[in-house]
Amino acid sequence: AGDPEAGEGKIGTCVACHGKDGMGTAPIYPNLAGQSAEYLVSAMKAYRDGQRGGGMSAIMAPQAQGLSDEDIADMSAYYANLEP
Amino acid sequence: AGDPEAGEGKIGTCVACHGKDGMGTAPIYPNLAGQSAEYLVSAMKAYRDGQRGGGMSAIMAPQAQGLSDEDIADMSAYYANLEP
Repeated sequence: AGDPEAGEGKIGTCVACHGKDGMGTAPIYPNLAGQSAEYLVSAMKAYRDGQRGGGMSAIMAPQAQGLSDEDIADMSAYYANLEP
Repeated sequence: AGDPEAGEGKIGTCVACHGKDGMGTAPIYPNLAGQSAEYLVSAMKAYRDGQRGGGMSAIMAPQAQGLSDEDIADMSAYYANLEP
């Protein structure tokens, strides 16, 4: 499982749209706070692998492509740990 | 904009995974409560249009394909109105 403390150090880019508190900074950006880590990992890997198109995928896919499995697990653990 | 009361009558299938309260019934299912209607509409249309693969898309795409724009707006308004 991911390490939320390590994840906190890896979300520098995410916060512009998803907030450090996991709440979307504009209506089109989903809230991540309190989603399960399992769901967040699944979504990030679908972006990374080029499976998830539409929506904001033009932004998300390039971001996800630079991430390791461990990065994704840590970042997901960070956001899953927050209260919405 | 969608009508949350009309949406309540259209979410009979959604609740198995996303709950009537908008909280995922298993970790792999995302919480929908309190997401913006704009985001939920975008996600549903990406499933309906076959753009969003990966994750649970094998379940979601067929569900979304039977929905009109109005259905999607109403269902999104219903879930956006809930507190997580």
